[in-house]
Amino acid sequence: MTDTLDPDLRQRLLGVSVATLCTALFKRGLRQQFIQALRPLNPGLAGNMVGPAYTLRTIPAREDLNPISVFNDRAHPQRRAVEECPPGAVLVIDSRKDARAASAGAILVTRLMVRGVAGVVTDGGFRDSPEIARLPFHSYHQRPSAPTNLTLHQPVDIGLAVACGDVAVWPGDILVGDAEGVVVIPAAMADEIAAEAVEMTAFEDFVSEQVLGGRSILGLYPPTDEQSRQDYAAWRARTGR
Amino acid sequence: MTDTLDPDLRQRLLGVSVATLCTALFKRGLRQQFIQALRPLNPGLAGNMVGPAYTLRTIPAREDLNPISVFNDRAHPQRRAVEECPPGAVLVIDSRKDARAASAGAILVTRLMVRGVAGVVTDGGFRDSPEIARLPFHSYHQRPSAPTNLTLHQPVDIGLAVACGDVAVWPGDILVGDAEGVVVIPAAMADEIAAEAVEMTAFEDFVSEQVLGGRSILGLYPPTDEQSRQDYAAWRARTGR
Amino acid sequence: MTDTLDPDLRQRLLGVSVATLCTALFKRGLRQQFIQALRPLNPGLAGNMVGPAYTLRTIPAREDLNPISVFNDRAHPQRRAVEECPPGAVLVIDSRKDARAASAGAILVTRLMVRGVAGVVTDGGFRDSPEIARLPFHSYHQRPSAPTNLTLHQPVDIGLAVACGDVAVWPGDILVGDAEGVVVIPAAMADEIAAEAVEMTAFEDFVSEQVLGGRSILGLYPPTDEQSRQDYAAWRARTGR
Amino acid sequence: MTDTLDPDLRQRLLGVSVATLCTALFKRGLRQQFIQALRPLNPGLAGNMVGPAYTLRTIPAREDLNPISVFNDRAHPQRRAVEECPPGAVLVIDSRKDARAASAGAILVTRLMVRGVAGVVTDGGFRDSPEIARLPFHSYHQRPSAPTNLTLHQPVDIGLAVACGDVAVWPGDILVGDAEGVVVIPAAMADEIAAEAVEMTAFEDFVSEQVLGGRSILGLYPPTDEQSRQDYAAWRARTGR
Amino acid sequence: MTDTLDPDLRQRLLGVSVATLCTALFKRGLRQQFIQALRPLNPGLAGNMVGPAYTLRTIPAREDLNPISVFNDRAHPQRRAVEECPPGAVLVIDSRKDARAASAGAILVTRLMVRGVAGVVTDGGFRDSPEIARLPFHSYHQRPSAPTNLTLHQPVDIGLAVACGDVAVWPGDILVGDAEGVVVIPAAMADEIAAEAVEMTAFEDFVSEQVLGGRSILGLYPPTDEQSRQDYAAWRARTGR
Amino acid sequence: MTDTLDPDLRQRLLGVSVATLCTALFKRGLRQQFIQALRPLNPGLAGNMVGPAYTLRTIPAREDLNPISVFNDRAHPQRRAVEECPPGAVLVIDSRKDARAASAGAILVTRLMVRGVAGVVTDGGFRDSPEIARLPFHSYHQRPSAPTNLTLHQPVDIGLAVACGDVAVWPGDILVGDAEGVVVIPAAMADEIAAEAVEMTAFEDFVSEQVLGGRSILGLYPPTDEQSRQDYAAWRARTGR
Repeated sequence: MTDTLDPDLRQRLLGVSVATLCTALFKRGLRQQFIQALRPLNPGLAGNMVGPAYTLRTIPAREDLNPISVFNDRAHPQRRAVEECPPGAVLVIDSRKDARAASAGAILVTRLMVRGVAGVVTDGGFRDSPEIARLPFHSYHQRPSAPTNLTLHQPVDIGLAVACGDVAVWPGDILVGDAEGVVVIPAAMADEIAAEAVEMTAFEDFVSEQVLGGRSILGLYPPTDEQSRQDYAAWRARTGR
Repeated sequence: MTDTLDPDLRQRLLGVSVATLCTALFKRGLRQQFIQALRPLNPGLAGNMVGPAYTLRTIPAREDLNPISVFNDRAHPQRRAVEECPPGAVLVIDSRKDARAASAGAILVTRLMVRGVAGVVTDGGFRDSPEIARLPFHSYHQRPSAPTNLTLHQPVDIGLAVACGDVAVWPGDILVGDAEGVVVIPAAMADEIAAEAVEMTAFEDFVSEQVLGGRSILGLYPPTDEQSRQDYAAWRARTGR
Repeated sequence: MTDTLDPDLRQRLLGVSVATLCTALFKRGLRQQFIQALRPLNPGLAGNMVGPAYTLRTIPAREDLNPISVFNDRAHPQRRAVEECPPGAVLVIDSRKDARAASAGAILVTRLMVRGVAGVVTDGGFRDSPEIARLPFHSYHQRPSAPTNLTLHQPVDIGLAVACGDVAVWPGDILVGDAEGVVVIPAAMADEIAAEAVEMTAFEDFVSEQVLGGRSILGLYPPTDEQSRQDYAAWRARTGR
Repeated sequence: MTDTLDPDLRQRLLGVSVATLCTALFKRGLRQQFIQALRPLNPGLAGNMVGPAYTLRTIPAREDLNPISVFNDRAHPQRRAVEECPPGAVLVIDSRKDARAASAGAILVTRLMVRGVAGVVTDGGFRDSPEIARLPFHSYHQRPSAPTNLTLHQPVDIGLAVACGDVAVWPGDILVGDAEGVVVIPAAMADEIAAEAVEMTAFEDFVSEQVLGGRSILGLYPPTDEQSRQDYAAWRARTGR
Repeated sequence: MTDTLDPDLRQRLLGVSVATLCTALFKRGLRQQFIQALRPLNPGLAGNMVGPAYTLRTIPAREDLNPISVFNDRAHPQRRAVEECPPGAVLVIDSRKDARAASAGAILVTRLMVRGVAGVVTDGGFRDSPEIARLPFHSYHQRPSAPTNLTLHQPVDIGLAVACGDVAVWPGDILVGDAEGVVVIPAAMADEIAAEAVEMTAFEDFVSEQVLGGRSILGLYPPTDEQSRQDYAAWRARTGR
Repeated sequence: MTDTLDPDLRQRLLGVSVATLCTALFKRGLRQQFIQALRPLNPGLAGNMVGPAYTLRTIPAREDLNPISVFNDRAHPQRRAVEECPPGAVLVIDSRKDARAASAGAILVTRLMVRGVAGVVTDGGFRDSPEIARLPFHSYHQRPSAPTNLTLHQPVDIGLAVACGDVAVWPGDILVGDAEGVVVIPAAMADEIAAEAVEMTAFEDFVSEQVLGGRSILGLYPPTDEQSRQDYAAWRARTGR
């Protein structure tokens, strides 16, 4: 998997919204890249979460295979994922959309943060969620869930393509998260999507300014009349965007 | 549809809670007027959302009918709804309870606000929800949803009776929203419901005061004993309500 | 039912997290004690909710049995529960996971608070939720729900074993709630669980400190290497825990 | 509870459909008496299931209280319910709409049949469902479910008002089941509802005959034109109904 | 709307499966044309249901607008739809996926059959389902539902684009139903889709024969090796397809 | 994975029910081995499905990776699974409980049958389900689903531990299916579970006979009184079981 991200790409993805990225993906025929029903634990964090996916897969926990002692094994996939997820990457946990037990807790999330990981995403829930919400670290889940992961989730492997919130996540795909949620950008499209999203963002900033100033959206959004296009060109010249 | 609202009616509805209105409707046999599972994007806004319903209906988006270019059409129902919803009205979007793609985004919601619309309600989700949450404007949805509406929702008509969160919404029905949610009051009943709710609110304010002061609810709420009724009469005299 | 709680037990349960308690229960084979999908209305309250369960059971409301006048009856189980729930106990309402109508509203919750009850929990929703959220009182529900309980819920009895959010709640079981949610501890196990949770909390505080300082979780969490155990012993000696 | 049923009432309820009974209840303001999402295991059985409700309530099974040995206790509520449900009554099991584990199996259902019970209804699922489907006995559930009830359901009491498939069931209410499903008729209304349903059935049989013969429903169903009313009178005279 | 169907088109659609039609639509980018979660009431009927859509839309039933007397109005949209749906067309009822109350019952369905309508589809449920299942008529629903439609569904208009089981249905779209379910073919594509489906069916019949005879699917399905293509050409020559 | 099964083990598992196997697993602490919400397509088939699991895993289908042409690749995991699943094994498809598009269709299922595979199980749906239902082959799914798997499911790998209907399935685990559903027996426990299930089946056959003959379940089921144990011993002697 790609564990490093071109700094320029990262920079561009830090400044665009997940909604804009979804539209750029939609234009290329990708309609199912937004991870459904997630919430950020700490929506007030400045800046987007941006990083390539590092995946951890779980299956339902069979009772005899999941006593509390399994964590004595240093090779347990959850613990390995936490220690081996590359700095700058996003740990994506496929929890089969089941938030009845936790995907991980505050100690593991803290370790990810300290190791320089970019964020953590599960389509289940985190335990110790109040503590996680206080960390300066990007984390996304469905809802808080106090029971230990042993109750329902058995981590089985690392680095495979997985499902997360009804989205396919291939290792190395670029995840971007803001206060709205998380989108998955296929690795091979990331440059093109980022470039388009930067352009769209400039235009939408112009439009927002105009609309706040009282202008109608008709002809402006999208810019079907000539005046709108001229005004936008002038705005870009003026603002240097 | 009714696009103006009697100022006195509006005033009374600004000062009562959605919960109280639901009880007044219940007494008249209407049990299903609370739009289920919505959240305000900006729960801290002062005052209720109050206004007659202006409706936009959607159906599932068929892929060939929903390329990004459809918005070039000024007659597209979503764009028309945003430009034509009367000031003071509430735009109600029937999104079939499907929040997997957006019902609208921040630019359209800003335009509604600038045009003087009273609020916007969908039983789906909004994109650009963090931006919408910062607008001084009443908006309600199920959850944030970044994908463009073209992904799943095709707006088809304006001004028809629709479903929203399991409630029937007829154009001109009065919507009232507070930090708890949104209730739909049939237009013909609005005066009567508002009058009763104002009375109930005075009584419940009295009761709250008494209960905070240590009084039992038995005999007081409802006021089945004579003492409660006398105390309430005295309270009304004293407070001028 | 047990309406008093040993002060020492209460003290210990005030200082541990619901997540830690779930793990202690898991070690004893109890996997389903976390009430699913609840949220605190006032997550910022200091300290845990702790108290024995006092239960109220509901069934679906049949229309002819639930006119608004039923509350004239002082023996109505909901009203009785509010007046009779012992100070220090937690009122647990089995609402059959149905939040389409309210389980109770602000006046009743205020009365519970004034009476010294420790908290209120429903697997449905509360009405007047913005008011309840402002009370210095522990309350948990699924989501706000403005319609009166008469719409869908008929309280039928008090003091029986009930279901709440897929958990069995026996009268006298100890409920503990924090910002993450609520766990149900069988009465007979409460001492043992509390003792273990206090120990686990000390250890997890030590681990958190170490992990924030840059230490790997391998060998430390769980403490499989000798160094970790020695460091923890030293930390306990130093911190007096 | 009422464990006997007037033979004439039973006779009338044997010959009308659940759909017709629902309409008669609707006319009296009762809208939620059809148990949702049930299927008969043996839809080919001749005649309706008719009998007063005898109720068994369950809560979630706590693991330590539900080892396989609990059935050694003759007083276990599930076993008692099977031995004590009166002949002619219907055993109604409140399984909290959870079909992930069984409510009962073929041996218990066979015992109910042999004892002369009128039928068994759960809003969960039965195990040994292929065997149950071969018995000449009315049984209704949501779907087959092989795991023993100990897995998820703890029976706690008998003879209380319960919820079943979103319907309130009071002991002694009359349950009627046909190939479509099961309706709950409040005991005090049963005579009146049965009488009306018999009338409605005669009329609908007349209408069906007419419609099959090519007549329009307009004016006929409901019989708003004079000709329809005359034809029906003639049909009643002719058929003796 | 198109109320007649080219006989040749109908003929071709009678002989292909819904699954094959879905694949032909998928190849043209249409992924959401299969109505989700429906069942035929009478799966043993010979031949497909084929016909253009005639649509009836419902919203939630407000109690005061839906007394039993509304059917006295000959212009009630449900009754009008039943009398006016063209012979050969399919009546499609948008019931908002809500099967808790009926969309229609046996008398209305019988009238549709007698009038020569091709079939009836709802994403809710039918009442009198055992009677409907005995009619030689194509009908599809989610599950049986005895309560009268007045309980939850208010029909509001006829002939508009609607949603049915998460599919957009435009009046005149061609519906095809077999024992598996129902697919919606956009009117303008019907010829092309039918032609391709006939071709695909011939090929799949050939493949089935080969596979039953022991041949591997590799190289055969799809026919990537030359031998498969030659064998198929020979089979077509031999069978005249 | 284990692709052969001891003939004696298979024989014993052919003669016991899934319900009985679930109870034997429950006694060993395994509570989640019954695949939830599946139905056999052909419930009338004689004998159980028995065989070791051979697993195929899917993730959501990304549109650009799933054109119809992917099946030209002989190494496509779905096609490989169909050609390589060992005779006597059960192909288990992890479809993430999503039945909105197919997991496979009749041609592939026919190929599995011809190759001597024991059965096929998905927690999604099959297309061509009417054809599959006519094959003398064990197949289980959630519900019929006509859209091609390319719509929503991308098969990604073979032979890994997967989730199926909320059950962990490890390659080589023994699957047993009857008309009620499918249970997953951990490979290492299969002998012990089969032995116990054979014993339990004998006893339950005895009990059924007694109960049909009018005997009470008290003391008999479980056999807590001495008479029951003696009668059973006599029955075993007499019947040779």
